[in-house]
Amino acid sequence: MQEVRVITPATVANVVCGFDCLGFALSEPFDEMLVRRTAEPGIRITHNDEFNLTTDPRQNMAGVVAAAMLERADVDFGVEIEITKHIMPGSGIGSSSASAVGTAVGMNRLLDDRFSQLELVDLALEGETLASGSRHADNVAPGVYGGFTLVRSVDPVDIVGLEHPPLWATIIHPQVEVKTAEARSILPAQVPLKTAIRQWSNVGSLVAGLAAGDYGLISRSMEDLIVEPVRRSLIPHLDEIKSASMAAGSLGGGISGSGPSMFMLSETEVTARSVEKAMHSVYRQTGIKYKTYVSAVCRDGARVLDAA
Amino acid sequence: MQEVRVITPATVANVVCGFDCLGFALSEPFDEMLVRRTAEPGIRITHNDEFNLTTDPRQNMAGVVAAAMLERADVDFGVEIEITKHIMPGSGIGSSSASAVGTAVGMNRLLDDRFSQLELVDLALEGETLASGSRHADNVAPGVYGGFTLVRSVDPVDIVGLEHPPLWATIIHPQVEVKTAEARSILPAQVPLKTAIRQWSNVGSLVAGLAAGDYGLISRSMEDLIVEPVRRSLIPHLDEIKSASMAAGSLGGGISGSGPSMFMLSETEVTARSVEKAMHSVYRQTGIKYKTYVSAVCRDGARVLDAA
Repeated sequence: MQEVRVITPATVANVVCGFDCLGFALSEPFDEMLVRRTAEPGIRITHNDEFNLTTDPRQNMAGVVAAAMLERADVDFGVEIEITKHIMPGSGIGSSSASAVGTAVGMNRLLDDRFSQLELVDLALEGETLASGSRHADNVAPGVYGGFTLVRSVDPVDIVGLEHPPLWATIIHPQVEVKTAEARSILPAQVPLKTAIRQWSNVGSLVAGLAAGDYGLISRSMEDLIVEPVRRSLIPHLDEIKSASMAAGSLGGGISGSGPSMFMLSETEVTARSVEKAMHSVYRQTGIKYKTYVSAVCRDGARVLDAA
Repeated sequence: MQEVRVITPATVANVVCGFDCLGFALSEPFDEMLVRRTAEPGIRITHNDEFNLTTDPRQNMAGVVAAAMLERADVDFGVEIEITKHIMPGSGIGSSSASAVGTAVGMNRLLDDRFSQLELVDLALEGETLASGSRHADNVAPGVYGGFTLVRSVDPVDIVGLEHPPLWATIIHPQVEVKTAEARSILPAQVPLKTAIRQWSNVGSLVAGLAAGDYGLISRSMEDLIVEPVRRSLIPHLDEIKSASMAAGSLGGGISGSGPSMFMLSETEVTARSVEKAMHSVYRQTGIKYKTYVSAVCRDGARVLDAA
């Protein structure tokens, strides 16, 4: 194997009540990556996009992941990684983890698939940790596994692929900056036990609703009493987006990752597109630049398109 | 319908990480109740057991539930309720809620099954609230629904019947007193957000493990970082019971309800009986009087044995 082309999807983390544990993969937007084996050792990174991300392999997540994999695999070749990023950095739909995940999946094919999915999450986390300053797998896990995932633990890594019925996501990305570090710093250090109980009852119910394909239960369980109340102020027009989307038939939703993107889930594509219209009608008047996406919750994670 | 005989099972609430939301029904021990329609209005309660519980229908949970149902159904007859209790009051395996649930299910048959399971939980909660001073449905819900249940909300009541694979419970009831009020008062009012996240990740994983029949995941998810650490001191020899049971092949377990009973879950009856032996070997030497039970997690809740 000399060259592998990978596409790696955007992901939604912090799914409402499931802060820091629940995430899912989209089918679009996605990044494209080309991972090429080279005879000379070392890692070279190039970008075919407008985002001016660093190409220093020690600073770029793809580089960090690739280095970790070459070391663990104990091989003596090098790699060139060409990244064509479509997932806008800082959008809150897993742009940074997409680079880490795509590299892990592409490199794994070059290395004859020697690493398991769980090991790939662990490897991609080395890159993600560089980006976010802390070890969170809730974007990386759906990027590798696809579908809906639950991160039971990051140390050791324990990932649960969840059963789920067909679901459609509508995403709106208002082009304002929300720094992950700031979004983290406003979280409370302590929460009332009563509120925590209500939150974990909702997490359990959401997982049960997904497993049973019970859309009503999924909808009722999408309630976040802990994170959304404090982060709401960072996300422009969150409440209006939610209420307009619910009126258009959405099951529920909230902040994607640490924002600024918001997501709403729906049972069908038709509803997801009505939700998109409802989002337009809220944002059109705000003067804020924004993008929207409609995508199935995708059962595939990052995948090799072709390898030569 | 003039007379209904009901058996109503013991239940385990506060299933490890699922404090205040997860519970399951046992097949034994169980209470027996006879609910008889009488021409003269009013409620009469008799006990065929040694526990000296009150027969005052305004103080007895069965009486409170029966009164609520007669009123909601707007009928003019009365009832006699004969209770033969086998579930020891104060044992932590849902003795009080069994009286409430048995009454609700028996009365419902007398009333031509006019109430849904969800309404029966709501009605039984009126009795349970009398006993515990607060509204908790995690014993009542498995008593009505059977199997494993999750209480998403008590106001309004929202109960989720969970899919689960075959599971066996081993219970040990050390005959010491743990007052529910005291067990509640030592709970922290606030918990660290990090700990709460870990707890809800475990709740989600446990529900996913039950749905998928993944015993390994069920086992890994049975971790309680919030309640067990503070209640451990109230439950004699909890740590020894847990480690001896795990060594005997149990999947995990903890305090049943607010104690003093402890429960351990196993994949098979054979293992559950080995766990019982391991529990004996811990408790035999303590001088504390105790009882053990081995029971399947029972897919039935309270049920009508015969009606005439």
